[in-house]
Amino acid sequence: MKWLRFAHADHQGFGVLQGQTVQVYAGEQFGDHAPTGQVLPLADINLLPPCEPRTVAGLWNNFHALAQKNGWVSPAEPLYFIKAAGSLAGPGSTTPAAPEAIGRVAFEGELAIVIGRPAHAVSVDQAPAYIAGYTCANDITAIEVLHRDASFAQWTRAKGLPGFGVFGPVIETDFDYAQATLRTRVSGRERQNYALSDMIVPPAHLLSLISQDIALQPGDLILCGTSLGVLPMKPGTEVEVEIDGIGVLQHRYG
Amino acid sequence: MKWLRFAHADHQGFGVLQGQTVQVYAGEQFGDHAPTGQVLPLADINLLPPCEPRTVAGLWNNFHALAQKNGWVSPAEPLYFIKAAGSLAGPGSTTPAAPEAIGRVAFEGELAIVIGRPAHAVSVDQAPAYIAGYTCANDITAIEVLHRDASFAQWTRAKGLPGFGVFGPVIETDFDYAQATLRTRVSGRERQNYALSDMIVPPAHLLSLISQDIALQPGDLILCGTSLGVLPMKPGTEVEVEIDGIGVLQHRYG
Repeated sequence: MKWLRFAHADHQGFGVLQGQTVQVYAGEQFGDHAPTGQVLPLADINLLPPCEPRTVAGLWNNFHALAQKNGWVSPAEPLYFIKAAGSLAGPGSTTPAAPEAIGRVAFEGELAIVIGRPAHAVSVDQAPAYIAGYTCANDITAIEVLHRDASFAQWTRAKGLPGFGVFGPVIETDFDYAQATLRTRVSGRERQNYALSDMIVPPAHLLSLISQDIALQPGDLILCGTSLGVLPMKPGTEVEVEIDGIGVLQHRYG
Repeated sequence: MKWLRFAHADHQGFGVLQGQTVQVYAGEQFGDHAPTGQVLPLADINLLPPCEPRTVAGLWNNFHALAQKNGWVSPAEPLYFIKAAGSLAGPGSTTPAAPEAIGRVAFEGELAIVIGRPAHAVSVDQAPAYIAGYTCANDITAIEVLHRDASFAQWTRAKGLPGFGVFGPVIETDFDYAQATLRTRVSGRERQNYALSDMIVPPAHLLSLISQDIALQPGDLILCGTSLGVLPMKPGTEVEVEIDGIGVLQHRYG
């Protein structure tokens, strides 16, 4: 099933995508809910981010191919940062061009894990039961800010500008990352194309390991990290992050 | 004025501390609100965290005395991380002892700026109008995790365990950081005692500089960083962070 959130007239809601329509649900998105019977044409709604995270953790160095290219050692434990709440945006959004002082800004197409239940100290075996589904993400990064100060890597700042955390369009509940490829197209040109099976720490292990320390809530995200092909974007760039079986996250930078 | 949030019977609310009573308010904490006329004895309520932040940014290397002791150069720009939403806790809380694998855990008594209005790209001159007030914080840190991986400093993880972000007890609206001292007492013994005037980047500049990049919301916090005297804590430790004119944040580790 493909869950989404939408705005329609003065109302916000959530539901299930079925072809070109949305079956509207009522209740808690990650709890008790039921279909209302209302069906809306996709053309009549505006897509919102498919959930409302409090915490978005993002991985660094989680794909073998990128690690090999950059000469990075595979980490002993997942290495992650948090994206600021004010950076989050959904499908169809436009990320404001960063101020000039920020320097170059790059796309990073990624798979995102969506947490479905309060998750703290979850075992690897139990982890799949805590995953509601998966979505696409662009973990936009100010690459010059990151290491501008030699004493302190500025992950929070470089990843946290408004609109730097784009995700959507839907949460796919039935998804096998090991069979799927991610493609990022930038102004129509394919720039990333990588198999998600190349991940160093896979989703269930990520959730288990991160949850030993960080308490996660329904709707929170873990961005699984990116692989080869990251490049800077100019203002006016159209970006599409596509994952087999999930869909296409379309948005714009600048 | 000293604002607080409380639980009373089955109800959560906010109000103003007046001696040993709370004048209850209704409406938005950082918007339109008015007193309800209800007055509750302080002894009858449970204190909650004094606001509900979405983003808590914490400073590294923001006091001259600590920088000098550690041989750190004063940074050209504020250097900060984000504390996980799941780490936040209020006065009177008990932080669960961290798992053994985490290693030593230290207190860091700090001044926290409370944001009062949506703040993005705010000038230094305008910044005071975006500050609702100030509170006390203990920015608890797993000091061995921080630099365990040589390729990536784990600020998010080291600062993000449940109960590692304690703040309160009240938001003081009428506060001059330059006249105030912070003291941290650990199981009754004073371990930190520093003048907030020793701050490298002061509150209005912090808010202005951080808000150029990170969009902040009412109730969000900026933790101003700590100074000399940080030490590890054993489970069973009582901690008090006191700031002149704000009050005493009491809580427990383990």
